[in-house]
Amino acid sequence: MTVRVAVDALGGDHAPDEVVAGAVAAASETLVPVLFGPAGLDAHGLELVACSETIGMGEKPAEAVRGKPDSSLVRAVGAVGAGEVDAVVSAGNTGATLAASLLHVRRLPGVHRPGIAIVIPSRRGPTVLIDAGANADARPEHLVQFAHMGVVFAQELLEVSEPVVRLLSIGEEPEKGNQLTLEAHALLAEADLRFEGNTEGRSLLEREADVVVCDGFTGNVALKTLEGTIRSVLGALRDEVSASRRARFGGLLARPAARRLRARLDPDTYGGGYLLGLRGLVVIAHGSSSRTAIANATRMAARGVEHRLVERLAARLPTERREPADVPGETPDRS
Amino acid sequence: MTVRVAVDALGGDHAPDEVVAGAVAAASETLVPVLFGPAGLDAHGLELVACSETIGMGEKPAEAVRGKPDSSLVRAVGAVGAGEVDAVVSAGNTGATLAASLLHVRRLPGVHRPGIAIVIPSRRGPTVLIDAGANADARPEHLVQFAHMGVVFAQELLEVSEPVVRLLSIGEEPEKGNQLTLEAHALLAEADLRFEGNTEGRSLLEREADVVVCDGFTGNVALKTLEGTIRSVLGALRDEVSASRRARFGGLLARPAARRLRARLDPDTYGGGYLLGLRGLVVIAHGSSSRTAIANATRMAARGVEHRLVERLAARLPTERREPADVPGETPDRS
Repeated sequence: MTVRVAVDALGGDHAPDEVVAGAVAAASETLVPVLFGPAGLDAHGLELVACSETIGMGEKPAEAVRGKPDSSLVRAVGAVGAGEVDAVVSAGNTGATLAASLLHVRRLPGVHRPGIAIVIPSRRGPTVLIDAGANADARPEHLVQFAHMGVVFAQELLEVSEPVVRLLSIGEEPEKGNQLTLEAHALLAEADLRFEGNTEGRSLLEREADVVVCDGFTGNVALKTLEGTIRSVLGALRDEVSASRRARFGGLLARPAARRLRARLDPDTYGGGYLLGLRGLVVIAHGSSSRTAIANATRMAARGVEHRLVERLAARLPTERREPADVPGETPDRS
Repeated sequence: MTVRVAVDALGGDHAPDEVVAGAVAAASETLVPVLFGPAGLDAHGLELVACSETIGMGEKPAEAVRGKPDSSLVRAVGAVGAGEVDAVVSAGNTGATLAASLLHVRRLPGVHRPGIAIVIPSRRGPTVLIDAGANADARPEHLVQFAHMGVVFAQELLEVSEPVVRLLSIGEEPEKGNQLTLEAHALLAEADLRFEGNTEGRSLLEREADVVVCDGFTGNVALKTLEGTIRSVLGALRDEVSASRRARFGGLLARPAARRLRARLDPDTYGGGYLLGLRGLVVIAHGSSSRTAIANATRMAARGVEHRLVERLAARLPTERREPADVPGETPDRS
């Protein structure tokens, strides 16, 4: 089976060079990256679909997507919707990727809001965090659906047979939280899920759960705090170690150990998150993606296709009463 | 000047032993801890005020405070309100400490909601995070007041003459955030503050601002993620280092460096947060406080008194139209 993955060559802080290099690195006999970028871009032998526009990181998502139909981002996402490729990766404007996906890939039947699912590499194995930033404001029922989507992800890609779900909050007790989490807690407890209550930010790297669910604002703050703290601590340790000769020598001997840890905790190792709840496979990579991150995100997209993640979600999400489309800019879903 | 600090001997996971030991360690010629706990408690020579009740960590705050007037927590907080001591420290139920403070210490005129201000020890110096957990749900105008309180804290205790304020959100751009932060951003930009826009979780340890403002839910998630990540990373590093003999030897040589870093980043170094916006000085310590944390929290309380933090807040908070009391259980403030 050959998987074709559209790669938005103009998305991200280090586009196009690092993006192209990452796509080239990910290419294999079974993985065919297709670059979307300006005509004349050196595609290093990969297929290039020429686009005439670019969406910047600071542009307003809905406006940008409507106003720039020939942008690399919209065209790459559109190729998934049209069935021309099997998946798409973009490290560009997250809001615009979301808006383009809602418009051109569309939601699975019954899905209120797509959510970004990312993998946190804990000491005891991976944990899925969902939503990591697609919905800055969410309602309790959205969190329940994120939980179901996270469970399918954990089962299909992480091979956890009965994933444990927890709600990210500010205390283990059910009565700790804000209005959103208090209501979500009650709904999660009634849902057909292996829900084991609240979890706290301090446990994110300790794998208290297979799936941690939250709104996109909280998830994004937690994720960035996690990543920033890992970087700051390892950086500070390097500074401390290089401050004395004895410690410097010790640090040299311990370096392979530190490097293993750094590799495990490096966000580039996963490279991106799945935007779950759509009729096609969309991977959102970090804005600051290096070539390694892009390569891993591209492989992650291919793995999602191979594991038929979208089909499994479609088959296994509990069907509920459909609420009216409430996402601005979206084509109403008539299914 | 002698400062008398009430210490809730029954508050926290390691009460009373670690709490008493911490209070004993903090005692000096100018700092007199006063223990509030059961009659017969070994106070190691400190003054003991006997109380007959205890509030547990899981109890509902408002009910517990009303139903247990002779609890160590309520009595210790009440002693500040009555002017019998200069400050109070509790590592007990945070919600109950907040409820008791609203009832017995009361808010400063014009303050909507007290906020927990904690110090994050970044590489380049301390950053004040407010609110770290007093208000799980907050309104935009509350965040503006937290900012003003954080500024007074930074000026008086951290000696920053013109503190830079930032809003914790999910992107640097003003249009990134949830409904709360978008509205708060607009208000902060108009306020008499040195407001420099949004900051992200990844920068919390990099001191992008002197004061970082957020609602209590977000602040608590970010703080616990930060603390948990520091602990996980240092723990994982120790595991990696002890996995090979060469690295073990290296780790031994580098150990003093790692220890310095650990000491700087250890939450026990500050030991607690100020509950700002009240007519008296209340310090909330971690539930898991060790004796070191309690000792540091007690010293922190005394320092707040010496620096006349409450008086400075009363004098310098911008006066605004007073909104009706909206905190359940609070005695309406007629001032």
